[in-house]
Amino acid sequence: MSVRLSSPEEYAKLLDQYDTWMFDCDGVLWHGDRLIDGALDVLRLLRERNKKILFVTNNATKSRRSYKGKFDQLGVEANVDEIYGSAYAAAVYISSVMKLPKDKKVYVIGMAGLEEELRNEGVSYIGGTDPADNTLEPFTLENFTLDPDVAAVVCGLDTRVNYTKLSIAFQYITRNPGCQFLCTNEDSTYPSANGLLPGAGAISAPLRYALGKDPLSIGKPAKTMLDCIQAKVHFDPKRTIMVGDRLNTDILFGQAGGVSTLLVMTGITQETDITGPNASPIIPDYITSSIKDLSAAK
Amino acid sequence: MSVRLSSPEEYAKLLDQYDTWMFDCDGVLWHGDRLIDGALDVLRLLRERNKKILFVTNNATKSRRSYKGKFDQLGVEANVDEIYGSAYAAAVYISSVMKLPKDKKVYVIGMAGLEEELRNEGVSYIGGTDPADNTLEPFTLENFTLDPDVAAVVCGLDTRVNYTKLSIAFQYITRNPGCQFLCTNEDSTYPSANGLLPGAGAISAPLRYALGKDPLSIGKPAKTMLDCIQAKVHFDPKRTIMVGDRLNTDILFGQAGGVSTLLVMTGITQETDITGPNASPIIPDYITSSIKDLSAAK
Repeated sequence: MSVRLSSPEEYAKLLDQYDTWMFDCDGVLWHGDRLIDGALDVLRLLRERNKKILFVTNNATKSRRSYKGKFDQLGVEANVDEIYGSAYAAAVYISSVMKLPKDKKVYVIGMAGLEEELRNEGVSYIGGTDPADNTLEPFTLENFTLDPDVAAVVCGLDTRVNYTKLSIAFQYITRNPGCQFLCTNEDSTYPSANGLLPGAGAISAPLRYALGKDPLSIGKPAKTMLDCIQAKVHFDPKRTIMVGDRLNTDILFGQAGGVSTLLVMTGITQETDITGPNASPIIPDYITSSIKDLSAAK
Repeated sequence: MSVRLSSPEEYAKLLDQYDTWMFDCDGVLWHGDRLIDGALDVLRLLRERNKKILFVTNNATKSRRSYKGKFDQLGVEANVDEIYGSAYAAAVYISSVMKLPKDKKVYVIGMAGLEEELRNEGVSYIGGTDPADNTLEPFTLENFTLDPDVAAVVCGLDTRVNYTKLSIAFQYITRNPGCQFLCTNEDSTYPSANGLLPGAGAISAPLRYALGKDPLSIGKPAKTMLDCIQAKVHFDPKRTIMVGDRLNTDILFGQAGGVSTLLVMTGITQETDITGPNASPIIPDYITSSIKDLSAAK
């Protein structure tokens, strides 16, 4: 059963107990372009107490560098090396775990941020923002040449997804022997400033359906994301807490990594998701209304 | 166990046994724009023997009228009222089974053929080929107005599918109370002249994934398609045979409708799909290499 935090003493104890604080961003620190009330104060408090802060996001449309721009714009203090995005983790996975040979490349369904992370990790790619693939013109196989060097398809949130990109990705996975099918993350929806829109999982869903095959997912809740963080940062799982708004990504991710978990109710999770007959089987260690509540620990 | 047809006597007996012949088209009569060898002869033979011929296709990009154009172009004799497409069946379902009130409308992810069938059945719609929705420009909810009269989303193969269409459809299904989620068909792939491409099921897959909800599917193997045919044509299921190349659409459709089934091997189904350890549990009554074989019955 989860502990519902409420008294100043409970928040103070939580701060004492954990040295490393991992935060999901959308739905926890902000909604789209609006900061969540009190988020800045709490992050400042954690820094004052010398806590290690990591931002762990499934948003694959932005590179770490451009995500840093978002922090700056909202006035949130952050270093690039505190930010772990699923685009970055996908690029690290392809270069360091898959060890993609230098003469091979990936086909990208995704946006500039994913391309930037691939370039930073020395991974060659085609597709992505290439104007030739960003079209609603008819796609025919007659005019398509299969590049035999494409050894993986990586799929992230792409708001310019179209039938040409899906058809090309489908060709590589079905026709290039051993071609891997990866996705940055499988979030079903994306919390935009004015409401939910289809998420990255919806972008890879056509391929998943056409192929009858699931992609290897990199982002939360997959352990791949945690492996990527652990390769760069030292932290003691026993003294680490993951703060998030989604049970099936953030909280599951924390649990899979053996760290504690705190659910906030400012994002996707509703009270009916955690209580009553249809409650999720995923039980966070702690629940609080909003990140703001932690300032009671002052 | 299926009967593998081979002798002239077996083909002759098959022709005697069945009065109504339902044909899938792509993979059975043609591949894209190329007729399958012998298809014309066999259709002619069936007409000489006064068989009732029905063409039952999941292709929802074409109306019956424009599908007739394809028959003409390939030199295949056919009347419009012998052609049953999933776009037509979807329109009939919305007007006659759902009985959509005249002041309500559907949001279309699909092409001109689906729109034409909706118009023919007096169903109002938005979306579809509307240039405003056929765009790769960013979609934001700020600039979107929910039309309260949209009571269903219908989704067919749409080679101009994009994030705007998916986001709008997602809004209607999640925000208009009781809004239905329909798809013309769930084929995972589409057999183009030069190879497989993602099918209609891949077009509705993003919504299915984002919503965590399956659409009501109209086309084969759903019985909705057969109900639509039975409302228009009299046939005796005991003396009817469905000829197709896909186990999980054509053959399943025939079985669900209580008619006999003949699998041809000129389309999607491979020998390994029907024999060996990974064989499908869907067993057609008869198997033959190609529709051409039936001309042995002469």
